Formats: sequence, structure tokens, C-alpha cells
Amino acid sequence: MPGNTLGEALKITTFGESHGSALGVVVDGCPPGIPLSEEDFLEPLSRRRPGSYLFSSPRQEEDRVELLSGVFEGLTTGCPIALIVRNRDQRSEHYETLREIFRPGHADITYFQKFGIRDHRGGGRASSRETVARVAAGVIAGRILEPLGVKVKAYTVELAGIRAREWDLGFAEQNPMRCPDREALVKMEAALKKAYGERDSVGGIVELRAENIPPGLGEPVFDKLEADLGKAILSVGAVKAVEFGAGFEATRLLGSQNNDPILNRPGVKALDPVYASNNSGGILGGISNGDTIVIRVGIKPIPSIGKPQKTVDINGTATELILKGRFDVCAIPRILPVLEAMVLVVIADHVLRQRRIR
Amino acid sequence: MPGNTLGEALKITTFGESHGSALGVVVDGCPPGIPLSEEDFLEPLSRRRPGSYLFSSPRQEEDRVELLSGVFEGLTTGCPIALIVRNRDQRSEHYETLREIFRPGHADITYFQKFGIRDHRGGGRASSRETVARVAAGVIAGRILEPLGVKVKAYTVELAGIRAREWDLGFAEQNPMRCPDREALVKMEAALKKAYGERDSVGGIVELRAENIPPGLGEPVFDKLEADLGKAILSVGAVKAVEFGAGFEATRLLGSQNNDPILNRPGVKALDPVYASNNSGGILGGISNGDTIVIRVGIKPIPSIGKPQKTVDINGTATELILKGRFDVCAIPRILPVLEAMVLVVIADHVLRQRRIR
Amino acid sequence: MPGNTLGEALKITTFGESHGSALGVVVDGCPPGIPLSEEDFLEPLSRRRPGSYLFSSPRQEEDRVELLSGVFEGLTTGCPIALIVRNRDQRSEHYETLREIFRPGHADITYFQKFGIRDHRGGGRASSRETVARVAAGVIAGRILEPLGVKVKAYTVELAGIRAREWDLGFAEQNPMRCPDREALVKMEAALKKAYGERDSVGGIVELRAENIPPGLGEPVFDKLEADLGKAILSVGAVKAVEFGAGFEATRLLGSQNNDPILNRPGVKALDPVYASNNSGGILGGISNGDTIVIRVGIKPIPSIGKPQKTVDINGTATELILKGRFDVCAIPRILPVLEAMVLVVIADHVLRQRRIR
Amino acid sequence: MPGNTLGEALKITTFGESHGSALGVVVDGCPPGIPLSEEDFLEPLSRRRPGSYLFSSPRQEEDRVELLSGVFEGLTTGCPIALIVRNRDQRSEHYETLREIFRPGHADITYFQKFGIRDHRGGGRASSRETVARVAAGVIAGRILEPLGVKVKAYTVELAGIRAREWDLGFAEQNPMRCPDREALVKMEAALKKAYGERDSVGGIVELRAENIPPGLGEPVFDKLEADLGKAILSVGAVKAVEFGAGFEATRLLGSQNNDPILNRPGVKALDPVYASNNSGGILGGISNGDTIVIRVGIKPIPSIGKPQKTVDINGTATELILKGRFDVCAIPRILPVLEAMVLVVIADHVLRQRRIR
Repeated sequence: MPGNTLGEALKITTFGESHGSALGVVVDGCPPGIPLSEEDFLEPLSRRRPGSYLFSSPRQEEDRVELLSGVFEGLTTGCPIALIVRNRDQRSEHYETLREIFRPGHADITYFQKFGIRDHRGGGRASSRETVARVAAGVIAGRILEPLGVKVKAYTVELAGIRAREWDLGFAEQNPMRCPDREALVKMEAALKKAYGERDSVGGIVELRAENIPPGLGEPVFDKLEADLGKAILSVGAVKAVEFGAGFEATRLLGSQNNDPILNRPGVKALDPVYASNNSGGILGGISNGDTIVIRVGIKPIPSIGKPQKTVDINGTATELILKGRFDVCAIPRILPVLEAMVLVVIADHVLRQRRIR
Repeated sequence: MPGNTLGEALKITTFGESHGSALGVVVDGCPPGIPLSEEDFLEPLSRRRPGSYLFSSPRQEEDRVELLSGVFEGLTTGCPIALIVRNRDQRSEHYETLREIFRPGHADITYFQKFGIRDHRGGGRASSRETVARVAAGVIAGRILEPLGVKVKAYTVELAGIRAREWDLGFAEQNPMRCPDREALVKMEAALKKAYGERDSVGGIVELRAENIPPGLGEPVFDKLEADLGKAILSVGAVKAVEFGAGFEATRLLGSQNNDPILNRPGVKALDPVYASNNSGGILGGISNGDTIVIRVGIKPIPSIGKPQKTVDINGTATELILKGRFDVCAIPRILPVLEAMVLVVIADHVLRQRRIR
Repeated sequence: MPGNTLGEALKITTFGESHGSALGVVVDGCPPGIPLSEEDFLEPLSRRRPGSYLFSSPRQEEDRVELLSGVFEGLTTGCPIALIVRNRDQRSEHYETLREIFRPGHADITYFQKFGIRDHRGGGRASSRETVARVAAGVIAGRILEPLGVKVKAYTVELAGIRAREWDLGFAEQNPMRCPDREALVKMEAALKKAYGERDSVGGIVELRAENIPPGLGEPVFDKLEADLGKAILSVGAVKAVEFGAGFEATRLLGSQNNDPILNRPGVKALDPVYASNNSGGILGGISNGDTIVIRVGIKPIPSIGKPQKTVDINGTATELILKGRFDVCAIPRILPVLEAMVLVVIADHVLRQRRIR
Repeated sequence: MPGNTLGEALKITTFGESHGSALGVVVDGCPPGIPLSEEDFLEPLSRRRPGSYLFSSPRQEEDRVELLSGVFEGLTTGCPIALIVRNRDQRSEHYETLREIFRPGHADITYFQKFGIRDHRGGGRASSRETVARVAAGVIAGRILEPLGVKVKAYTVELAGIRAREWDLGFAEQNPMRCPDREALVKMEAALKKAYGERDSVGGIVELRAENIPPGLGEPVFDKLEADLGKAILSVGAVKAVEFGAGFEATRLLGSQNNDPILNRPGVKALDPVYASNNSGGILGGISNGDTIVIRVGIKPIPSIGKPQKTVDINGTATELILKGRFDVCAIPRILPVLEAMVLVVIADHVLRQRRIR
């Protein structure tokens, strides 16, 4: 009934607040015998760390994972893997003025309405700092999927309304935004700079591509692969939209245009299908068809801005709020490894679920 | 691990195939003392019945609910409510030619890849006929929410690329598409007719509005209200996209434009907020803020079309498939009560979950 | 949160009341390709049917299973299997006098306290009639386990304080009590007759033996095999005690007596252990060790008796209750197939859970 | 599917091994606004600490809880409470000889059979050290139940076959065994001493009493209160038997003896029942009736003994094992707070579950 656990065969339970002593996750259900060490988390966590890109929040966190359980002599044991990441550069005093005031666009007011109490420091449990645990869980999921060759990559395909129109994957690998369009990136960075100067923020659209997915993942009828992926992605703060394959654009196609013709691989006699197109985004009837899973995710602009905003305090008194300090201008690119992690976790869960069947 | 159950405090488990003897649902967790009778299901089920609108599939089903348990002398008892709807007009023989061929855009091939066996008749478990159980569950959820005044309404806001630009709710109440724009509806019906004539199909976009939602629903961090609503909606066949509030459009706004200013109701001294806008779609940090929940859902064109399509059979032999018979031209309007039901079920679940807290 | 579902990989959800229109179960997670027909349920259900043994309740039920879903052309499909058993010989009017009075030893009063409403007819959901759905689920679980050679058998080892001291399995197979001691059975039947004559009831102890269990079933640390078996067995009405292996008697042994020495099979070089004794009941640290699982279950005397009893009505008025009609004198032997079914369901669940690991 | 989580509305997930860096638990679902500090755990954890009673294992652990999340300014927030207890005095080298040998009566062999890998140090995840996390969870559950006045107490009622026949609660409060019989305790301590001298071990029976339980807790039909209590208790290592109320003894009573007559409190007009006896152990039909919940738990003798034992190694080679070092002679009294904790956790879970209903 409480909601801090995700998954069935691979079950992740996260905990921690922005300014508590640590964040962490318990990953239960990881198969035994998989190599895992604290070093494996360094690179993925550094990708979501503040201060790693222009105009991002200057909070410095070391973000080192401490593995507490479930690993013995470098291998997973099949028992729950718990890990924590300490909070260090917390500066809670910055938030003292927000103790009784609700920031617009944040969960401040809804947590207060839900629980009647809230940790006001940096958004508490609702902080994007919480995603450190998701990325760590994604590392473990990635390890489970390694033998299958599963690859999950996120790309920035739109930012502040500027759309990437080229698809240069080599270029995407070289820039922190993972934008596949060189010209678009120049404009995106200009938009980031402008918003930064105006103490405002911007949003964008991320495309996720998951390759080498075995067919047959996903369960009828509620735990469809789209449903579970959609849930995991929509559970990330700042995400307000998600679409699969052709997505909203599919609604404007005829059935004859949208259906992906099924072909067999040339020279193969047994069933070994390929698809002439991928409007389905690799999922048919909620079950993977073996094609690349394609998801686009809409990220709202960061609600923390330096401009004056109308709001109320816990007594209902109207007030104007001007946030001090510096915040990220955009959740992208820091959100990219978080979204990749959510896809990895869901795919790994469904791979383990499928094992019971065949 | 299997996936035919949804919800935590209100748990629904559905079963049944398109051409089996019955479909049904077990609703566990409904509070006691709520009036419920078989008649309560008639009107909602008639809304999703085939043949109720132009160019829809002519299959005739009575769709009468039989209540098997959980109701005593007209009141729910707190014990699981099981109900079934018999399949009558099945005509399985129509599907005999599809026993070994996979229809493009359908789950035929993925079910076969997943299970190594499939009920080929009418899509089996993957048929849209399955949604009859969802609508029935929604009726019960609606009863639970009645004392709170919760209203959930679906509207067709786009069909075949034709967008509703007027917002005439009175008009929407009067047409089966629940389209709020008189002129757009004329064009939509023309598009339906054209697709029908060409033995093709179309898709569209549905907007869901849930009103009188208490603040505080939704759980940190995975069972956010958007996450659970998104999952439930994406679990409906044909849905390929979902967005909340301003959705993808929010990604093109500045933070200062997207944040909804918080105001207090005039003359009220205690905390009783209203919002100057509703870009959030009524959900902040995954928790309801008391404003109207707004969701838009992208529905792909129906994959069953009369045009020739490339596909393969279970041996991998390439073939061309021309489907016989008549199919719906569009999942709208029959999908409207299904989507409303999913929202009702998730909201009722979270209302019951919230009760444990305060 | 509601409690009518059991299991993780094999999930069973039951529904129905003693005097509703039907009882049933949805079995979700059954692997595909397993032969299953309505006839498979006849023999197991006849074993738990009233009237099948001396001094048992004369209520006549046909107890025919109707399969509603999940089976196609005689094989399971991997989709949820729903089945119902109709109630026919209900005679609700017999219970009219019990509408406002609570029978001692029954759940009448606690259901009323929990829900504020109750179906008074025959105990409603708390009736032993509910176990028909458990036996049906056990048939499906048994089918899943068939390829492993798993056998689960229940024996009456004590009744009304009369203990079986011989262990003649051949004899046990021939009597409905499945009592392995010929002399004890004679005394047990005399005790049944005496209680019948006095309009009273008796209890007893059932021993369950599960053979050919693969080692490795059960999960650290809460879902230990004993924990899940214990829960499933204690969820059967009338069960008040459960013990594994030497059970309570183990508490009187020294460690050196209770530990089961581990031997390897002669002539085998690889790890292939046998145990010199089985005080553990086939489970070590919550995980099966490959030896026979041995469980003893304490069954209380049936609370429905013809003698006058002190009780109260829904207004709290003290009264004396004399139940009319005839009831079973003992839950044994009708409970035997129910207990076997619970063990089968838990073992099948854990077999499917283990598949994800290795 | 993995098994390290217990509960529905109050969900506890534990992790950690005997010789890993820490053990811990995430408690999700604790209501907000409850006072909680690290000091609250000191006394309960000291009760289960080694070395706190005669002939117990000399391993010294500080067992200080570190609260990582879910508490803000001394109050719970409604967000998950994670806590860890560091392992300090580990002496892993003692266990090096056990790397490839299986200790009889322990989970060594079954973990190896299940996972193909195991942490051999001190039993790894199967160590009784794991119960530190359970006791910590019990502290939080106890806090949730405080306003209801719920009290849960464990008593040693039998040890090494010596039964307590007096019931002197005042005396029980004064000895670490919580044995209510002064004379029996003298004999029990002599038995402990004797077993210690022989490098052997003994078992015993613990009685749990839970008072001030609201009526109406427990769910039909699988999540009966006995079922969930039984599962939680049987999930504790060393527990091999559990019974409720009159338990196995109830099987030797007539129905007319076993049924607890229902009386109303004198002078009260509304329904406010008391029971003339408590053979039910406070639970009818799986739902609490408001009377004291009485449970007896059979604890096997500790499998770690100093006497030579027959066993095999991971290659199947037969060998004789003589364990070095010192171990507890009996799981009692250290298991007492663990069993109390399990009862508190299950009761708190069901109290929160019941809130959704009325």
C-alpha cells in the first residue's frame, strides 16, 4: 500500500530525503553469481550528479555507493542488495525560509496535504536527489541484462521547443545532452543560457531506445510492458508525458499506415520475424516483439525559478515567493541516466518474470 | 508475477477471452454497505457494446452482468465481488483461417512468442472484449467514490487528426463520441465514413477529466498518482500515449509559465488553496492537489483492416493477409467508458490507501 | 490489502459465499500447455463434498466445476484460469433465525465487528463451503507439479484424542479418513458416533506428507517455505495449530538429537545428499532440502453443535442458542483434500518462483 | 517474488548478512507524526544481543541503530524509514573452515542448493543475526500501536522439556527468560548449564500474549490474522511449530468444551462482548474478537553444537564436523524480543489495513 517499492521479480525499494543522512535502495530478486562492486556505480552516478553540465545546480555530492549486503567476494548471492549514498553538501539552512511556504510547481503543498507534516529541506522525499537510488538500481538491472546484450540509451530530441531533426548517433555519444543533432544542440544551449540569465527554466523531450530486447516480455493484461514502463517513467519527478513508438502521432495515421508489416528474415525457415516499420515501438498487445523499444518522455521545466511567484503559506496567507540560490535550468541532461535506469529495471523485472513461463 | 491484477487497497483481477464462455472480474477490497445490483452495470456496459455507433463491429452481445458474490440483500459485504459476463455471439469459425497466421498490429505473434500457444479466436485474451471486465470494475469503483462527488468524464478531442477546438460540454453530453466541438464532430464522422469505405481504420485522442478529487491522493515515490493512472491507462489495448495537464506542451513552456500560481480562496483564513492555472493536471509530485485531473490519451488506429497486409505464419512463411468480416473503424467511442473506468479504479484505490494515513 | 489472494508466481484469488450463487477461483500464473478439463476436478471435489462419510452434513451439492477462461482446446494458455462451482442446495431459510444472533466459535461476531454487515446464511464467506475453491486451485497446482513427481498426501493421525500408532499406508489408502492405523480407526469411528449421538463435535490432527520436492524451494527470509506453507494452512478455517518435522517435540530434543546428519548417496561423487533422519521436516532455514516435507495440523472441533450455548445478539442481549439441523461431527475427513490443496498451491508457487533464479 | 518483504499496509523489507557491513530494514507505510529517535531502539536491541544471558554466544555487538530516512525533527513523515545496524565484531576467519562444509541443521546446504553460491560466514543471510532488523521494525510497529494500548509479551513456558506450571507474571517480568514459574526456572537453568557442559543445545516453547487488540483485525480468507501471524512467526529461524489459543489441545476437546461462550458486559445495552473462556486465542474465523491473542511457539534446539556430526562438503564427500568456538545453548531468551516484534508488525499492519474499511 505504501508506494516506495517497484517491480515483482526484481523488487526495488528506495528510501531517503534530500537532506537526510543518506539515500538508498534495496534490490531484492537479483540472481546470484553476478559480479558487482562499488566501483560499478561511479560512472552512472556521476552522470546524474549536479554540476556536471553548464548551468546546473552547484551542489557537490561525492555520490559514492556503499554496498551493505547481498554481495560476497565480488558476486551477488541472491539475497537482497542494499546500498546507500550519503548526503554531504546539504546546506539545510538555505531552506529555512521555506519551512512554512509552498513553492509553486513543487510537491511542497501536496505532501503537506497528504501527511500533515513535511520535511521542507530541499523538497524532502520529493527531491530529484531521490533519483540517485534509481540510478543505482539501474546499474544492478543492467548487470542482470548484460548477458542478453540489452542496451538502453536516452537522447535529448527536443529542448525548450527546439527539435533535433538530424539523427547522428556518433555525435549524440559525444555531448552530455546526448542530442543527436549538432545544429539543434547549439540552439538548445543558447536557450539554456537565456533561461539561466532570466532566472527561469526550460523543459524538453527525451527519447529512450532499448535494443536487443527478447520477444515475449510483458504480461497480460495489466502488467503490459508499456504499462509497467509507463508507470516507472511517470514515477520520475518532472515527467508529465510518455508515448511509445509513433505515440500521439500514431493517432493521425490510418490503420494501414500504422500497422507494422511482419516479414521473416530472408533465408530462415523457422519463425524469426522482423518488422518493416516500428510504429509499435517494439511492443504489441503489451508484449515485446523483439524490435527496438522506443519511448518518448516529456519533461516539464524545473519549477524552481528565481522569478517572483504567487503562493500561500501553511496558514493560507497569500504571499510572493522569490527563491534564492541556484537551481538547474533544465532537468535534462541529469535526468537521462535516471530514465535509462527505470527502463533497465522494468526490463530486468520482466525478463525474470518470463523465466517462470518457458 | 502474472499480470491480471491491478491495485492495492482495491484490487481487481480480470479473466476471460474473446471467445471463451465468459469474461469477468473479482473486485477485492470494496468497503461494505454500498448498494450494488446487476442493473447498475447495464448502462455503462451498453456504452462499450459493439454496434452502438456508426461503423462499429456488428457483433451482438447482451452484456449482462451476473453478480456471483460479495453482495448481500443489495449491499456490498466487504468480501470479494465476483461478476461475469457471458460471451454469446462468438462465431469462432470466422477465425479458423487465423489459427496459424499473425495479424499485423495485433498481439497474435507476441502471445505466441511468449506462451508458445495461443487462443487465436478473436485475439483471445488480447481482445478488446476483455475491457468489459474493466468497465464493470469501474462501476464498483464509481460507487465507492460517489460520496466524495468524484466525476470522471472522457471526451474525444481529436479523431483522424481532426482536432476539437470548441469546448461545449453540453454538446459533448449529447453525442456518443462525447466530442465537445460540433463542427469538428461533423468532420470526424466524415473521416470515419471514409475509412469505413476504404476498409481502413483511424485513431484519435481522448481527454479525461476527473473532478472533485480530494487532495493528498498518490504515494511517494513509485506509486505516484500519475504513475498509477498512467499504468492503468496504458494497460488498455490500443493506447500508445498518455500525458497529464499540459503534457508534451509543458516541455515548451518556461518554468515561470508552467508553474501554477497557488492562491487561497478569498475570505478563507485556513489553508484552502486554488490554482490560477492547471498545467499540472491536478497532480504535484505525484500527489493530487485538489484541482481537476486532466489526462490525454493517444489511441492508435484499430489494427484490424480489410486491406491486404504482409505477414508471416507460425512457420515463418511470408504471406499476404486480407481480413474478412467487419471491424470497428475506430476504438473511439467504445473505449471512452473503458478509460473512465480505469481512472475510477485508480482513484478509488488511492482513496482507500489514503485512509490508512490520516 | 484485502486478503482473498494467495501466492506470487502462482496467484489464486477466491470468491463466493456459502449461500451466494457460486464460489470460484481465478488462478493466475499457470504455465501454458498443461492439459486441463472440467473432469479433472470431479474426484478431488467429491472428496470434500458433504455427505461423503458417516455423520457428515447432508447438504447435497453437485460441485461441478465450470471452466470460464484460460484453457483452449484442452490446454492451459498462460492466461488466468477462472472457474466457478454453483451453489444449489442452499436452504437459506434455515438460517433466518441466525440473522441477528452470533454462533459461538464461528466468525459471525467478528465479521459483524469488522464489516458492520454480514451475510448470515451458513456463515457467508467464512463458511467451510469456501474451501471448494481451494480444492479446485489445488487441482491446477497439482497439474503444474506433475512432471516433477510431487505427491502430497494427508493422513488422519489423531481424532478426538485417539492417536494412530501404526503406520500402514496401504490401509490409509483404503479408508476415507486416511487413517494409517486399523485399530485406531475403529476407536475414532466410535468417538464420531458418540459425539453424533450427543449432538456434539470432535477435532483431530492431520499429517501432511509432500514427496519428491526439489531442493531449493523457499525464499529468504520472510517467504520461507515453512512460513508460506504455515500461512496457507492456517488460513483454512478450523485450523489452530501447525508444526513441521518434529515440531513441538523437537523442543524437547538436544541439538545433537534434533540435527539431521547429512550423508551422501553411496557411490555418488557429486553432491547428492540424503539425511539420516528427518526432524527438520524437509526444510532447513526455510528452504527445502529434498527430503519429504512433513507437517502436522491441529483441527478444532466443529463449532456448530446441537447443545444449548450462551451467546448474544447484535444488540448485545444475552441469549441461549440451540442450533437446529445437522452438521458435520468433525472437519475430518472433508478437510483432507483442502489441506493437500494448500500444500500443492504453495509448492507450485515456489517452484515457479525458483525458476527465475537458476 | 523474492521474499525479503513482509506486510501490506506496513511493509518491512530487511537486508544484511551476519558478516556483511550492516543489517537493516526499510519500514514503509508508517503513519506520519509519530515520535521516533535512535534511542528508542537501544533497550529492545539490547534484549536480543548476544552475551546478555548465561551461556550465550560471546560475540559483542554494539547494535546501535542509525536512522537514515523518514524521520524529521523527531517525528515520522510518512515516508519510508530506513535504518541500519553495523556489524562490528565479525571474526570471519573463524568460519574459513566452513567454506566448503555444510553444518547439519543449518541452512548452509539449502542456500547452496538454491543459489549455487553462499556467504559461508556465520550463516550469511540465514544467521540469527538477521533478526536485529526484525526487532528494529517491531519498535516502529510498537509506536504505531501505542495509542491503542496494545501490549505484546513473550514468556518462556517450557525449556528442554521442563514446563512452567505456575503463572506468576510479576516474577516473569524480573528474569531474562521471562519464565512465569520460579521453580521451573531453576530447573531450566540447570538444563542450560548441563547442555553447555556437554557442548550441546536445547529448545523450548514461548507463549506470546497480545492484549488490547481491537476486534475486526484480519482479512478473509487467506490473510486471516492467524495466517499472517503464523507466517511471520514461522519466518523466524529455529521456529518449527505454532499454535493459537488451545492449539493442538483443542483437537482433544468436544465442540461444547472448545467453543467460547459469548457474554455481554453486565450493565451494557449495546454489543460489547466478552468471552467466558479463550480457547480461540482471541481470533474467530481469522478475525480478532477483542480478547487476548495467545500464541505458543516451538523453538528447536540451536543446531550449532560442539559435538562431532556427520555431514558432507560441496563435492559430496562425507566428513565429520566438530564446530569450534562458542554458541548459544538455546535460542531463548534472545528470541523473545524477535517474536514480540513479529506480532507487533503483523498487528500494526492489520490495524492500518482495517482503517480502509470503516
